[in-house]
Amino acid sequence: MIKASKRALSIEYAIRDVVLPARELEKKGIKVIRLNIGDPVKFDFQPPEHMKEAYCKAIKDGHNYYGDSEGLLELREAIVEREKKKNGVDITPEDVRVTAAVTEALQLLFGALLDPGDEVLIPGPSYPPYTGLVKFLGGVPVEYRTVEEDGWQPDIDDLRRKITERTKAIAVINPNNPTGALYEKKTLKEILNVAGEYDIPVISDEIYDLMTYEGKHVSPGSLTKDVPVIVMNGLSKVYFATGWRLGYLYYVDPENKLAEIREAVDKLARIRICPNTPAQFAAIAGLTGSMDYLEEYMKKLKERRDYIYKRLNEIPGISTTKPQGAFYIFPKIEDGPWKDDKEFVLDVLHNAHVLFVHGSGFGEYGRGHFRAVFLPPVEILEEAMDRFEKFMRERLSS
Amino acid sequence: MIKASKRALSIEYAIRDVVLPARELEKKGIKVIRLNIGDPVKFDFQPPEHMKEAYCKAIKDGHNYYGDSEGLLELREAIVEREKKKNGVDITPEDVRVTAAVTEALQLLFGALLDPGDEVLIPGPSYPPYTGLVKFLGGVPVEYRTVEEDGWQPDIDDLRRKITERTKAIAVINPNNPTGALYEKKTLKEILNVAGEYDIPVISDEIYDLMTYEGKHVSPGSLTKDVPVIVMNGLSKVYFATGWRLGYLYYVDPENKLAEIREAVDKLARIRICPNTPAQFAAIAGLTGSMDYLEEYMKKLKERRDYIYKRLNEIPGISTTKPQGAFYIFPKIEDGPWKDDKEFVLDVLHNAHVLFVHGSGFGEYGRGHFRAVFLPPVEILEEAMDRFEKFMRERLSS
Ligand SMILES: Cc1ncc(COP(=O)(O)O)c(C=O)c1O
Ligand SMILES: Cc1ncc(COP(=O)(O)O)c(C=O)c1O
Repeated sequence: MIKASKRALSIEYAIRDVVLPARELEKKGIKVIRLNIGDPVKFDFQPPEHMKEAYCKAIKDGHNYYGDSEGLLELREAIVEREKKKNGVDITPEDVRVTAAVTEALQLLFGALLDPGDEVLIPGPSYPPYTGLVKFLGGVPVEYRTVEEDGWQPDIDDLRRKITERTKAIAVINPNNPTGALYEKKTLKEILNVAGEYDIPVISDEIYDLMTYEGKHVSPGSLTKDVPVIVMNGLSKVYFATGWRLGYLYYVDPENKLAEIREAVDKLARIRICPNTPAQFAAIAGLTGSMDYLEEYMKKLKERRDYIYKRLNEIPGISTTKPQGAFYIFPKIEDGPWKDDKEFVLDVLHNAHVLFVHGSGFGEYGRGHFRAVFLPPVEILEEAMDRFEKFMRERLSS
Repeated sequence: MIKASKRALSIEYAIRDVVLPARELEKKGIKVIRLNIGDPVKFDFQPPEHMKEAYCKAIKDGHNYYGDSEGLLELREAIVEREKKKNGVDITPEDVRVTAAVTEALQLLFGALLDPGDEVLIPGPSYPPYTGLVKFLGGVPVEYRTVEEDGWQPDIDDLRRKITERTKAIAVINPNNPTGALYEKKTLKEILNVAGEYDIPVISDEIYDLMTYEGKHVSPGSLTKDVPVIVMNGLSKVYFATGWRLGYLYYVDPENKLAEIREAVDKLARIRICPNTPAQFAAIAGLTGSMDYLEEYMKKLKERRDYIYKRLNEIPGISTTKPQGAFYIFPKIEDGPWKDDKEFVLDVLHNAHVLFVHGSGFGEYGRGHFRAVFLPPVEILEEAMDRFEKFMRERLSS
């Protein structure tokens, strides 16, 4: 037997522990309502037509070559325009790098930042690949608390307490996965202040930036005066093109503290040659084109959010905050016979045939919760909630 | 100034050292003939129509979601058929993983194999990202010699001598970049024997497998009886779709020694979600469709190879072996006033306005050589060779 690296084996992927049992049930012909995956394109959403057309046109026009490793200049210009409009940031195409979705932006950034033993502050609960990527590099993911009673806003005192000599970055995910929280301007300013005190850059994951129901997304990139902020965004959510694997990062760095990080990111980017070339033309069309589709899509999503929020809060043993952005809801298991949230999720799966993800799969601060997506149409959510409600009433009365 | 990681800064990318000066010249309006980049799609080659159509159809039909992290089953089935036909390997879709081109296959594999200090044997000279990726992971790339006088075949004694307790894999790149060598069956068997003796897997990069001029490519995967072989291939070269970033790897593992490596690759693959989904439909079309285009393309390439080979050998101070595969030629600088191959390449660039890559950019064993691609049409190669010949005659007579 040939041994695998410790680095790779160190990665846990808790979400998978519930997908395999779901597949088993489905093999037996049981219809599971899957509320586990954050992919709108698996439901009644699609990238807008003008993006699809631009993608195909690029293929037919022959844009199938290796592009520059930093991304096509025309796309980087479109990103600058989009981000200036959205965040008022003062950047040029030289500050932008195109990546194979936000995932690759994270890989490049963490690769450029982390040596073994280095720490990254990530919000708890949080999107699991953050933990996985940091561990893979021999780094240490450190979760700072976000507070449920406070709409899952970051606990700034906890954040500050957890900074050490090895802290290399503070990650902000806003709107948040899995909690749906939208961070307040005040909170973001406080995070920037802490970062500034310790001379640590802020990494801002804004992949859900235009997916908000109440309030508007504010970027730390729009607030910083001196602290370097690295913003990540992409086509997967707001442009409903998950499967195209395209994203970007850019540096808001008023005091030019990131020169070495930029160089390191570029070195790593050159090794992987380039992101998908024709998809970059689709991105240009998306970033410069009409956003009318978003209004319709957000109307659907809001209806679904309102529905699931209402239903969940009526179910005994369950309480939940109202997500303000993204398409996740993160309820608390208040009462019931389960030893932990994973046992709960498996029980729901096997008996109500609805698939959630256990909260502890998103880290320590997710314990005692579960995550549901509200992407399916209301009829399907209704069926899921009916099943789930019946299940809970049974469990709590026995 | 915020410090970058040692891991990222450790990566050199020599090829870039010559691209920047070329850009400078071009900015001044000078027309440089670039023979530096291995991208046929920048010249008169394109992916075949049926692949482009399948790609667009997938986009229009709505296949824009996150696919399974292991790759679409239908594509993995097509890969099995393609590889059975080409290499007679006994594999199933469970043995196949789809990746964002061969580059990502390498990232996943090295990530699954290497902890800091681990070694990988790579052919010298070789494609630079091998060195870069291994170093990034804290590993040690160790070059084994390939012998120019022997058509750049691997030196098996050198390979064996360089195996240590930390050797985690032997990489084979065949047909080779940068030398264009096609390895003999006998050589491959010897490599497998050495690997078997020390219980080390072989990684086989077959991205140029159907691009041969004389002789046919043989895969170590088709020869192994017990030694685990991990084969990598993709759309970039044989299917002329460099910019689509799609590839795959598969395990030929008769004695099931790779169970842990497979699990580690899958963990890493799940973190990055999935490869581009519609591009996978293009791959299905490519792998199962007509290969007629290849005949025409290889005829063009052979003509260009024959031309550059003849011209280079007529130029004083230059000698070269004949590449049997891929689209690179790797001549030796026999004579001249330069202190090293990099000075030579810069001198050619500045005075003949032709861009080669210095051989030492491909490692120790590349010293005293340079790499040229023979992708452009003969008229352009002729202009390049005319300029280069004049330049050499001048340099050698002064
Ligand atoms: C917060 C967050 N960041 C990043 C990603 C990765 O997105 P992608 O790699 O598709 O851009 C996701 C996907 O769900 C996410 O929720
Ligand atoms: C030997 C070899 N392997 C791998 C690659 C990377 O190819 P890709 O990532 O486009 O599949 C190249 C590209 O030139 C190559 O020459």
